[in-house]
Amino acid sequence: MYRYSVILGNLGNTCDRFCKGYKDNPSTEEMLALASKIPFVEGIELVGTWDIRPDNVKDMKKRMSDYGKKCVSIIPDVFTVKEYGKGSITNISKQIREHALNYLRKMSEIALEMDCGVMNLWMGQDGYDYLLTADYNQEREWLCEGTAKLAQEFPALKYALEYKPKEPRNFSYHARMSDTILAAKETGCKNVGVCIDTGHSFVAGENVAEAVVLAKRAGDLLFHMHFNDNHGSWDDDMIVGSVHSAVYVDLLYNLKKTGYSGWLSMDQYPYREDGTAAISESIMWVRQFEKIVEENFEKIDALVKLNDAVETSRFLRKFLTC
Amino acid sequence: MYRYSVILGNLGNTCDRFCKGYKDNPSTEEMLALASKIPFVEGIELVGTWDIRPDNVKDMKKRMSDYGKKCVSIIPDVFTVKEYGKGSITNISKQIREHALNYLRKMSEIALEMDCGVMNLWMGQDGYDYLLTADYNQEREWLCEGTAKLAQEFPALKYALEYKPKEPRNFSYHARMSDTILAAKETGCKNVGVCIDTGHSFVAGENVAEAVVLAKRAGDLLFHMHFNDNHGSWDDDMIVGSVHSAVYVDLLYNLKKTGYSGWLSMDQYPYREDGTAAISESIMWVRQFEKIVEENFEKIDALVKLNDAVETSRFLRKFLTC
Amino acid sequence: MYRYSVILGNLGNTCDRFCKGYKDNPSTEEMLALASKIPFVEGIELVGTWDIRPDNVKDMKKRMSDYGKKCVSIIPDVFTVKEYGKGSITNISKQIREHALNYLRKMSEIALEMDCGVMNLWMGQDGYDYLLTADYNQEREWLCEGTAKLAQEFPALKYALEYKPKEPRNFSYHARMSDTILAAKETGCKNVGVCIDTGHSFVAGENVAEAVVLAKRAGDLLFHMHFNDNHGSWDDDMIVGSVHSAVYVDLLYNLKKTGYSGWLSMDQYPYREDGTAAISESIMWVRQFEKIVEENFEKIDALVKLNDAVETSRFLRKFLTC
Amino acid sequence: MYRYSVILGNLGNTCDRFCKGYKDNPSTEEMLALASKIPFVEGIELVGTWDIRPDNVKDMKKRMSDYGKKCVSIIPDVFTVKEYGKGSITNISKQIREHALNYLRKMSEIALEMDCGVMNLWMGQDGYDYLLTADYNQEREWLCEGTAKLAQEFPALKYALEYKPKEPRNFSYHARMSDTILAAKETGCKNVGVCIDTGHSFVAGENVAEAVVLAKRAGDLLFHMHFNDNHGSWDDDMIVGSVHSAVYVDLLYNLKKTGYSGWLSMDQYPYREDGTAAISESIMWVRQFEKIVEENFEKIDALVKLNDAVETSRFLRKFLTC
Repeated sequence: MYRYSVILGNLGNTCDRFCKGYKDNPSTEEMLALASKIPFVEGIELVGTWDIRPDNVKDMKKRMSDYGKKCVSIIPDVFTVKEYGKGSITNISKQIREHALNYLRKMSEIALEMDCGVMNLWMGQDGYDYLLTADYNQEREWLCEGTAKLAQEFPALKYALEYKPKEPRNFSYHARMSDTILAAKETGCKNVGVCIDTGHSFVAGENVAEAVVLAKRAGDLLFHMHFNDNHGSWDDDMIVGSVHSAVYVDLLYNLKKTGYSGWLSMDQYPYREDGTAAISESIMWVRQFEKIVEENFEKIDALVKLNDAVETSRFLRKFLTC
Repeated sequence: MYRYSVILGNLGNTCDRFCKGYKDNPSTEEMLALASKIPFVEGIELVGTWDIRPDNVKDMKKRMSDYGKKCVSIIPDVFTVKEYGKGSITNISKQIREHALNYLRKMSEIALEMDCGVMNLWMGQDGYDYLLTADYNQEREWLCEGTAKLAQEFPALKYALEYKPKEPRNFSYHARMSDTILAAKETGCKNVGVCIDTGHSFVAGENVAEAVVLAKRAGDLLFHMHFNDNHGSWDDDMIVGSVHSAVYVDLLYNLKKTGYSGWLSMDQYPYREDGTAAISESIMWVRQFEKIVEENFEKIDALVKLNDAVETSRFLRKFLTC
Repeated sequence: MYRYSVILGNLGNTCDRFCKGYKDNPSTEEMLALASKIPFVEGIELVGTWDIRPDNVKDMKKRMSDYGKKCVSIIPDVFTVKEYGKGSITNISKQIREHALNYLRKMSEIALEMDCGVMNLWMGQDGYDYLLTADYNQEREWLCEGTAKLAQEFPALKYALEYKPKEPRNFSYHARMSDTILAAKETGCKNVGVCIDTGHSFVAGENVAEAVVLAKRAGDLLFHMHFNDNHGSWDDDMIVGSVHSAVYVDLLYNLKKTGYSGWLSMDQYPYREDGTAAISESIMWVRQFEKIVEENFEKIDALVKLNDAVETSRFLRKFLTC
Repeated sequence: MYRYSVILGNLGNTCDRFCKGYKDNPSTEEMLALASKIPFVEGIELVGTWDIRPDNVKDMKKRMSDYGKKCVSIIPDVFTVKEYGKGSITNISKQIREHALNYLRKMSEIALEMDCGVMNLWMGQDGYDYLLTADYNQEREWLCEGTAKLAQEFPALKYALEYKPKEPRNFSYHARMSDTILAAKETGCKNVGVCIDTGHSFVAGENVAEAVVLAKRAGDLLFHMHFNDNHGSWDDDMIVGSVHSAVYVDLLYNLKKTGYSGWLSMDQYPYREDGTAAISESIMWVRQFEKIVEENFEKIDALVKLNDAVETSRFLRKFLTC
């Protein structure tokens, strides 16, 4: 059985470009209390600046320990800051690039202090919106340099690059599994790998199960996993299992097959739902898919070698009962 | 329990624009024999010209009766004929429009002879490919006129317009549920309605369950149903349940709620699969979704009034076992 | 030549679900001053509550008149308010539905005071996110009732329903041109029609030029137009012409052909751009497309009757020079 | 100025899964005669088996030379053959994999005989359709092995892997630029690279101009280019410029900037158009985009460093005249 975790902020307020807040703003303490009630959760991911800063590291470390939860990753906030609106470490301003890098260093130090081995880098603002408005090669070079510096300075940390095709930029540099593998390998650092967010992968048109295999083949580069579901065309960040089904079986099967040893973390955006309940649901769904794979691993292994859609359909249909 | 049917040609050979045939060409008799073995199938849809023509109507009627199957619909072939490549009843050539209309008349007569109440009109070539190459208003006018003439001349038949956003044209005139409702209503004929193909609806970005409600509100215009599944971006014509799950529960629930009384017909394109087995699978999946709805109708009814994604998730999760 | 207008808020701050503000917040006065500098702009659309409220109607009327600008439409704000997060006039709470309707009434009164003939209703929160969480028929009934009441109480106003397939809800009730025509017609009120936002139409998979024709055929139901561009899969709200080209020629041609007499309004969301400059660009692009249509109307008219992609390509290619 | 070429088969008959032929079948000689009339065309791509086989190599070599055309690439036909319907060199049958490899060897020998340096490998059937029906790692291993063998045996040839997200399979192994770079690099052979088909890249959700940069950064891996256009969601294989505009400027700029030295080949599928005229149009459009880049290279270079969408819009708008 995998270890499960949640992103703390998923339990907080939600907004979009129209509505500034669909809920109320809970305190960090309240969110921690909520997270601790979700079944099977052993770990928590913290967003930099929002959840954790130099001034509250000790305090957070103690609180997490009081709740008996592990700090699974730090997610530096380079996506909500106005200064980084046109890029953080790929910004055309040298000063902003350095500012961003320093911030990432600070967050890396915090990760060490928190005994947290993974930095989850979602470089949401590093990309572009309009055609003919970016020097793709130069900006990718800065992306590579910045990531490499960080990874070299903090060899004890793993940097998991989280990809997403678009939003908030129309085109992201870390867009799909393979681009991100290339970006990771360009750094020449073994401690740079990839984080899959299932919903981002769906929007990218990938089969997320195959993305796992790509990361394996590239040298065991899958460092982290975020789970959610969507309707296919956008990062709706919904409860796992709301739309898709078979794809999670394929995914869990390939995670097991490739020996994935990281966390299964829930990453939703429950705009109008009770956050705690919505995330609990996702965990119960993933657990159920996990069980199907655990109890049928050999069968699935035989099935994928068969290349027979009818046999696969028969197998999957058994799990739908009433 | 609904009545189930299949399209005969689904059991035949398959091809695409690259490969002329992934299988062998069975005879009509062979396909009938195969269809008769699929569990729960009580009816068959016949494609005009290919399966049925003036010269074999009597023969087919006898054969279908021998197999104890009902002719559920006739699907006139206005999509494989070179002459109609740039439109059948919307072609800019008056001669071709008349030719197409006469063909549709002939097929309507056959439907009467076969005691088949539904003409399933999939006007696949009626649309356009390039911007600024069609007089949309004129062609829609011809579409309306042709359909109306047919419906008026054959008041005993129901004409189900099957919509699909694209393929073989880049833009179809009958593209989505609501366009097609408008097209049906423009004719002023009560016997013109709509056929939903679930996969076409997925590609259109619709929630197919809501499309059922739209047809109901427009005056009980849902005349026929085709089932299949796909990955969301294209009409992959796959086995039901291969990708999606919850959407079929929503669909079956709304079919029941709106009092749909037509057939549930399977319409796949099993490129590389054994056709009989692949279609049998779809039927077993739809039957399972139907059972879930049958046994939980009141619960679902309460659920949709709740507006609570977490409660819905809990409900759906129960049906996934292992 | 058409009359051009802008939405005042386009000149203000921008945000998304990650970043609370990419720019600074200008005052209404500052935005009016900026708008007045954009070439060809004769009218302005005001967002309810934000730009205009009962307490500042007189003031705004005077200011607009001082700037010599017409109030083109009022866009009631039913999309940023937490109370309406799960629907305004389709909310399952009767109290919220009534609250929303009263707000829309108040905004309609303001429109009358402003001598503004068009209410642009973008019912962004009226829809749903998850399957099996909404009674589609009941909610559409409320939508129809609420809209009809409003339209009956204010017969001097035109209500333009602005459609969009998704965002902020995963499924909107006013999703595409034809759904929205059906919704308009259900009210039985002649003063209910449709507003096209070009970008929403692109995301819906429609050919926006054909959508114009659908509205015409349904009884001259195109009441208003919003212009912007995007990369095709999401409402990126970009400068017109950044991605697409030919489609605007087709659109402008069909607007002229169907005798559209409303405004051409710019509706962008210049996240990281100078708002005034970005909107000015859109106007210059639309003007250029308009000129092409004005000077070549007969040619285009002949072209669309030809059904010949090569001839169309030759025609369009001429306008690309260097 | 780049050298332009066409794929011979683009001038032949067209079909789709519904219609077996929209046109007539011309002979190879007729197609060559047609190709020779298209302005600026200096080279021709030949599809294996269809256009060129061991029995007609000498003849074709002479004919091409008579027409003064260069053989730009050989495209082995591993996509229309029933035997390869479930994969060629990734087929689960060892016999079929070997058969496919031998065929590719034979075609490579032909390429040498034709003094043609590029093998364009579009492995259209190498992928899968349904979830949980393929051993992704094993099949990718076979793909790598087969490609590597070929590349090692024919070091004088360049193998350009042409990617496409789907069709004819629901998921292709060579799906996007970065997957394909990874697949190329896995072989360890310097003579394995990538072919971009602009339309495939659009459907993949990539910015094709950025894909060029990715190939450059990976070690000058862009070996070949196919041009066409589409509406964004499917490989419509249309005339260049029919839908998009700015993206081709960005593409041509980046081809020049990265020092691309290969051919610009037209690859359309003119379903219902006169092939020769449709392809001529594409060439005229690409030439025009090329001219814009040639005459404004410095300006564009400055522009992309600016990161200013408004300035870019102003620049692009100049080229739209009337």
